[in-house]
Amino acid sequence: MVSKYMLDKMKSSSAIRKMFEEGKEMIAKVGEENVFDFSLGNPNVKPPEAVNKSVKEILDRYAAGDIHGYMNNSGYLDVRDKLAAYENRTKGTDLAQQDIIMTCGAAGGLNVLFRCLLNPGEEVLTFAPFFSEYRPYINNHNGVLNVVPANPPSFQPDLLAFKEMISENTKIVLINSPNNPTGVVYTEEAIVGIANIMKEKEAEYGHSIILVSDEPYREIVYIDQELPYILNYYDNSVVVYSYSKSLSLPGERIGYISVSPKIDEHDTLLDALNVANRILGFINANSLFQRVAAEVSGETVNVEFYKKNRDLLCGLFDELGVSYAKPDGTFYLFVQSPIEDEIAFCNKAKEFNLLIVPARGFGCPGYVRMAYCTSHDKVERSLGAIRRLFECYK
Amino acid sequence: MVSKYMLDKMKSSSAIRKMFEEGKEMIAKVGEENVFDFSLGNPNVKPPEAVNKSVKEILDRYAAGDIHGYMNNSGYLDVRDKLAAYENRTKGTDLAQQDIIMTCGAAGGLNVLFRCLLNPGEEVLTFAPFFSEYRPYINNHNGVLNVVPANPPSFQPDLLAFKEMISENTKIVLINSPNNPTGVVYTEEAIVGIANIMKEKEAEYGHSIILVSDEPYREIVYIDQELPYILNYYDNSVVVYSYSKSLSLPGERIGYISVSPKIDEHDTLLDALNVANRILGFINANSLFQRVAAEVSGETVNVEFYKKNRDLLCGLFDELGVSYAKPDGTFYLFVQSPIEDEIAFCNKAKEFNLLIVPARGFGCPGYVRMAYCTSHDKVERSLGAIRRLFECYK
Repeated sequence: MVSKYMLDKMKSSSAIRKMFEEGKEMIAKVGEENVFDFSLGNPNVKPPEAVNKSVKEILDRYAAGDIHGYMNNSGYLDVRDKLAAYENRTKGTDLAQQDIIMTCGAAGGLNVLFRCLLNPGEEVLTFAPFFSEYRPYINNHNGVLNVVPANPPSFQPDLLAFKEMISENTKIVLINSPNNPTGVVYTEEAIVGIANIMKEKEAEYGHSIILVSDEPYREIVYIDQELPYILNYYDNSVVVYSYSKSLSLPGERIGYISVSPKIDEHDTLLDALNVANRILGFINANSLFQRVAAEVSGETVNVEFYKKNRDLLCGLFDELGVSYAKPDGTFYLFVQSPIEDEIAFCNKAKEFNLLIVPARGFGCPGYVRMAYCTSHDKVERSLGAIRRLFECYK
Repeated sequence: MVSKYMLDKMKSSSAIRKMFEEGKEMIAKVGEENVFDFSLGNPNVKPPEAVNKSVKEILDRYAAGDIHGYMNNSGYLDVRDKLAAYENRTKGTDLAQQDIIMTCGAAGGLNVLFRCLLNPGEEVLTFAPFFSEYRPYINNHNGVLNVVPANPPSFQPDLLAFKEMISENTKIVLINSPNNPTGVVYTEEAIVGIANIMKEKEAEYGHSIILVSDEPYREIVYIDQELPYILNYYDNSVVVYSYSKSLSLPGERIGYISVSPKIDEHDTLLDALNVANRILGFINANSLFQRVAAEVSGETVNVEFYKKNRDLLCGLFDELGVSYAKPDGTFYLFVQSPIEDEIAFCNKAKEFNLLIVPARGFGCPGYVRMAYCTSHDKVERSLGAIRRLFECYK
């Protein structure tokens, strides 16, 4: 009765679910304080005070229809105005109101975008390791995902391999920086390299290739430098943003797409995004949090919280001589498994009440991902367990 | 560059958009107070006071992570508990927590459901007239929509035609009562008739056929009787619900799916819905309004407001001798066009600053839909224009 497509997708998501269930069993057995769960990217830093304050103010200030009612499917016009101005002020872009499309988080934004761009069988090319949900997001709309192999130890995009793999059938190149699962921030050199190859290939194939940048971790960075903003490097580009991490609001499903004013078929694409938001069942990004987003743009959670966790873990791994990519952002740490079969390693970790994720699903076997968006105290108390785990392989 | 699928879907939605644009031009010319816009189903009755009150209380009562954070993709467990209990209390069902799946409104619910049930080319059978968005919702997931012809003047489902059209390829039968665009409430006899034919065909074909009832207008009814609840009539059934109309919260995108505990492959379907919510990009229904829904279930907007509008319009049409289906619910009136070409009639209506929608898109040419979810004053002032419009065809 259930569709073959979903049965297939359920199978590939069962590993994460299994870990979730095992975590619950572990908690029942040894108590929550003794389970070191590094499996899920669920931000645990509080949203800025401004969020709830802004919700209450909006409820008092606006008429009900302007908070809870329908609007243009791409979002409230005044909200999009404010966000376009914010982007232009902070990133030097030249976005108009219409170039901002409010979406149900980044996941909603990517689905809407893929529906608008992909004909059946067309390819999205991304770089390993990559966020594992990209595959279903693309397959939902009958597209095909291909992956440029990982490039350790820097985990910057492998431009030579990229140039070889991009093909006539490539409709979209998808990047994600700061990257989930590595925490690595792509360098400006890498962005320029990707853009140049794409321009060359566009000329060679005679059709547009769209660069899509998924940037939910844009504000979760530990380095004091501006991140390259792809709209300033490549005309046929789109940025997908979410407040899930920057404001710790993952449950509220609020984000937006910024479309380059210079993109090919600009007006048609904006119309398509508007209709896709509607027919895919989102209709519009949730109305109250559209208003909140406009009010609190520029606010971020306390990133120092995550940085302290990172430093603690990196310190331990340095001491143990374990190879890892030093994260400049996100709250993930990408660590080489001491044995080739990282699934066996993650199973071993459970004996120490450690939950970590094998990186096979991210297109990078032999590595594991640790999500350190947990309390500092928990991270401190986990160090002994991590040390004992790695000592098993000495 | 834009996908062929979206170009096609944009074409079919351009009529509504054109009317929207014309409405704006009309407003610029004659002033908003003189434009009688019956085109859109945008509820204009205020949400109950309890909604905003409940938002504020929730912000004060819960920890941030329990309002704005991730939860099980099918929704907060305590919310689903409360809603299952609410359904059981008010509808005599026997739903457990797990049978309630929180969704991004009914549009989100239907998309998730169609993805879980439809293999490419499988059919959804519905009854004309039908909500025009069903077609893209089904096509998004590679399904096919077929339509049992309309059955005027009652607009109850045509059971004889249904029995002839249902086929080996029918995976889903989709009903919508109270109905958009007619406002008609399907009788218990009709529901029993549909269920009996489906049971017979399930036995004949040897596979499950799922009855999906889309019920966003369930509480917007003017008759003092209980509406049949399909979970009590047919085991392989699912109800899709939304708070958009009952609480006037269409922008917030909050609703839920109730799955019959007796449905075939029950546990697999629940798992599939959970994963589909995630991979289609919804992730979860927005978290704050999940909590609001649980708090205010049972509250409804003031339906009397809509009823007064209905009575005024029906009174006029009775006087004019115009044929229409008397709506027992929703805020739509389905009126026979005085000429066969109802598009020409709707164009004529614009001369009187009246915006009404041709019913071709609802699968029922020769009729028009009027959405009377506008102010009573506006409806009163529109009567002269409507009278003059119909007099053109005397």
